[in-house]
Amino acid sequence: MVGIDFGTLSGRAVVVRVADGTELASAVHPYAHGVVSERLPGADTALPPQTALQIPEDYREVLRRAVPAALTEAGVSPHQVIGIGTDFTACTCLPTLADGTPLCELDRFADRHHAYPKLWKHHAAQPEADEITDLAAKRAEPWLPRYGGRISAEWEFAKALQVLREDPEIYRTTARWIEAADWIVWQLCGHETRNICTAGYKGIHQDGAWPTREYLAALEPEFADFAREKLDAPLSQLGARAGNLTEQAAAWTGLPAGIAVAVGNVDAHVTAAAARATAPGQMLAVMGTSTCHVMNSENLAHVPGMCGVVRDGIVAGLWGYEAGQSGVGDIFGWFVDHALPADYAARAAERGIDPHQLLSELAVDAPVGAHGLVALDWHSGNRSVLVDHDLSGVIAGLTVASRPEEIYRALVEATAFGTRTIVEAFTAAGVPVHEFIAAGGLIRNPFVMQTYADVLRRPISLIGSEQGPALGSAIHAAVAAGSYPDIHAASTAMGHLEPAVYQPDPERSDAYDHLYGIYTELHDHFGRGGTEALRQLRRIRNEVT
Amino acid sequence: MVGIDFGTLSGRAVVVRVADGTELASAVHPYAHGVVSERLPGADTALPPQTALQIPEDYREVLRRAVPAALTEAGVSPHQVIGIGTDFTACTCLPTLADGTPLCELDRFADRHHAYPKLWKHHAAQPEADEITDLAAKRAEPWLPRYGGRISAEWEFAKALQVLREDPEIYRTTARWIEAADWIVWQLCGHETRNICTAGYKGIHQDGAWPTREYLAALEPEFADFAREKLDAPLSQLGARAGNLTEQAAAWTGLPAGIAVAVGNVDAHVTAAAARATAPGQMLAVMGTSTCHVMNSENLAHVPGMCGVVRDGIVAGLWGYEAGQSGVGDIFGWFVDHALPADYAARAAERGIDPHQLLSELAVDAPVGAHGLVALDWHSGNRSVLVDHDLSGVIAGLTVASRPEEIYRALVEATAFGTRTIVEAFTAAGVPVHEFIAAGGLIRNPFVMQTYADVLRRPISLIGSEQGPALGSAIHAAVAAGSYPDIHAASTAMGHLEPAVYQPDPERSDAYDHLYGIYTELHDHFGRGGTEALRQLRRIRNEVT
Repeated sequence: MVGIDFGTLSGRAVVVRVADGTELASAVHPYAHGVVSERLPGADTALPPQTALQIPEDYREVLRRAVPAALTEAGVSPHQVIGIGTDFTACTCLPTLADGTPLCELDRFADRHHAYPKLWKHHAAQPEADEITDLAAKRAEPWLPRYGGRISAEWEFAKALQVLREDPEIYRTTARWIEAADWIVWQLCGHETRNICTAGYKGIHQDGAWPTREYLAALEPEFADFAREKLDAPLSQLGARAGNLTEQAAAWTGLPAGIAVAVGNVDAHVTAAAARATAPGQMLAVMGTSTCHVMNSENLAHVPGMCGVVRDGIVAGLWGYEAGQSGVGDIFGWFVDHALPADYAARAAERGIDPHQLLSELAVDAPVGAHGLVALDWHSGNRSVLVDHDLSGVIAGLTVASRPEEIYRALVEATAFGTRTIVEAFTAAGVPVHEFIAAGGLIRNPFVMQTYADVLRRPISLIGSEQGPALGSAIHAAVAAGSYPDIHAASTAMGHLEPAVYQPDPERSDAYDHLYGIYTELHDHFGRGGTEALRQLRRIRNEVT
Repeated sequence: MVGIDFGTLSGRAVVVRVADGTELASAVHPYAHGVVSERLPGADTALPPQTALQIPEDYREVLRRAVPAALTEAGVSPHQVIGIGTDFTACTCLPTLADGTPLCELDRFADRHHAYPKLWKHHAAQPEADEITDLAAKRAEPWLPRYGGRISAEWEFAKALQVLREDPEIYRTTARWIEAADWIVWQLCGHETRNICTAGYKGIHQDGAWPTREYLAALEPEFADFAREKLDAPLSQLGARAGNLTEQAAAWTGLPAGIAVAVGNVDAHVTAAAARATAPGQMLAVMGTSTCHVMNSENLAHVPGMCGVVRDGIVAGLWGYEAGQSGVGDIFGWFVDHALPADYAARAAERGIDPHQLLSELAVDAPVGAHGLVALDWHSGNRSVLVDHDLSGVIAGLTVASRPEEIYRALVEATAFGTRTIVEAFTAAGVPVHEFIAAGGLIRNPFVMQTYADVLRRPISLIGSEQGPALGSAIHAAVAAGSYPDIHAASTAMGHLEPAVYQPDPERSDAYDHLYGIYTELHDHFGRGGTEALRQLRRIRNEVT
């Protein structure tokens, strides 16, 4: 089985044994163009601020490079592979012709930035997102509460409306407005499919319907038929077979034509299967640059500030919930890159360790609260539960005795407090969290994990795989190929979970309750209207730069 | 004329021409024991937290070393010197026998830390200071409003009460509780004098009287006669002649016996004369590690959060006001020492410049507010106008795009906002500020000075001397020796002022008004009871460490 994870900067292929999920080999291929945010390839004109694009050919190149490399490395004959599954960053979406050709690959549109795929972190459609939210609130559209009351600038409708407003010709030429998650599957099996996950979380598809024609027309007359004309298609359950691998895709990958291709999926959501986190109440936190939380439940509830709830959105038969923290690992990385004194850098280099490890070692033994600090983890805005990207970070309690490891620890704690805020929001809304499972790069830092256990007052389980999304894609491919009846069964057989690796320490947890109280007070003051200071600072910054 | 400035870590002697204040030469002698805060010399026992002591012999050594060195360097014959003046940190005070012998110089008390001089930044008497303030407020003591409503832990009464409580034998053996400012004059002229400045600002002497016996008894029965027995003595006007140089002191210094010795004075206050800042409404800010503001006025007013107002406290015939910021240069120093990335340190080293200069250069050109940051400058607590050392620093508006020079700039701006808060408090209380004059080490940083001009919306004048306090002491010595009729005249002849060196830029000032508005909102929220977060963080820190 082959799983491919299309990330922000590279694609990773993994070869997995169907019987038990053993990862036999993997290979990474970085995108030649990475994230395009300064100027289009070969062009001189600067792109507008907050633009983040990608190049479709970079995605195809992962099929041509990473898949054969992983097969070779695994020593597996291509003919032993019976299926291929993929996952993608989301919402990453692009305009295509009716046959799936990206508009940016037409010569006449090569210099038009709106013809290119918009990466998830393209944030230039914030005005459109605000309009979409405001109008939906005014009209009390029934789907709005399914998204915690706010439609993101990262999602399909905001990005498409930006294209219509700023380059109507591109909009009119767009036959299909499609997630890259579904587009890559189209490249593999030769026809269009749409998965229920991105349609729900990123495409405002709820209870079997898109937003109404009336609503869309009220937004912008020409946008009235956007959903029906450019999005609509039968939606496929996750783990379903999208089709068979085409001759062309077989040539690219070295895999046999005709094997099963699973429908598209999202990196965080597909990881739930890899971590055996598909039962109701198992919250999976994929912790990296940012953190994405996914969880299944039998109940439908409106959790304030969640990203979305979608029926069958993670596994068929359950309500799938998503929440997120915009900044986690990137905040720690910012600190190491821009606030680490020379002597600390030298000590880490001397010992041949990562500065994160040094800071963690220096921070770990101090009693809780000894640094006298509390931070707000909004250096990249706040996704849940405030859903406001104009917020920014705060550190309170600084003195001339404050040391780098203390500030680093306060930042780690702040992200843990942010997670606790999300867990408590779900619990309060009637969607209880029974188990907290962590995946992603940050699980390799024991200090971070123990802090989360202490702050959350609950054990932290860990995914038992280094490449969760790619393994999750392979699990979905196994279901698509018919090796397992459903995702639950495949996840049980092929997923890897290490239960309760970190246990909360009751004394530290008690001490953290006090700091969390202060965090919550500052969170609500800065985030819920007690002060407009952070939004004013952002406004001033934007005006003068 | 010789002036000697006794600082926190060293003493500096300067030789000055009486006619025009030209500084002919200067010499510095560092205290052998510096600040004693870990353990007494030759002892093993750790001192209690927040203890800061000094060794009297270190002060005498400045007389023996720095004065002859400065004379030699100046090429001046000792017989041309007609007077000597001194200034000291304050409140730095010590217990002595009736003849001025410091108790710590008696063998039987050498191992008792309460027998030693307590440096101004000895902060262990906070509980006593709180008691003194609370009882005075309850009894509506008339002197309390003269100190902005709060008696500091740094001052004479709190420090003496701590000695009584913790080492009654030392307290009972203390014949005189004396400022080091007056003690050093005693060493020079052989008899005790007391200056009106420290008696007023640090000793609660107001309207010709000390706090009443009844008040002191209510504080602690045995404290009832503290002021009458251990403090009281005729008070001398600043610039008065304390006496004549003794044979012994002449032998130490190489100066002729019998020349005029000026009464004691305080480093910041004496600088006003050096900067020609003795007229009403001239606010002098001595900007270094911390900032001390002194200003004369014809009016008596109760300025909320000032340190004190004393009749004749800076020059005879006027009300002298004092205010302060606990942390200024130390905050910038903390940033450079503990948050400067290796590549910045390397760039500064490569160019052979100070990191402060590098950060200032990188910060100076950005439009006001482009960093999106506002900080509260309370890393060392807040002296004016909140008078609360349990407050701590805050930085708001951080993002993963925040760069070191931006945070550095926000810290510089925060201290300027703190100064503006003080200037506005004086103005609002009916004590207008006509001119803002800066002295101290920070005046050498043009970026800092220009920021202050822009934030304050007023020109910044600079003292025209590198050694303001020592020059000020020499000016006072000139008056004591009879060369000038009063401080005003001596200051006009011998002081150095460069008027309006930095002019505010109207556009930047307008932009800073917005940031100052945000600063004030956060200042009042965190400092005036909107939230107890900072005090709670301090309490938690103190409990666990």
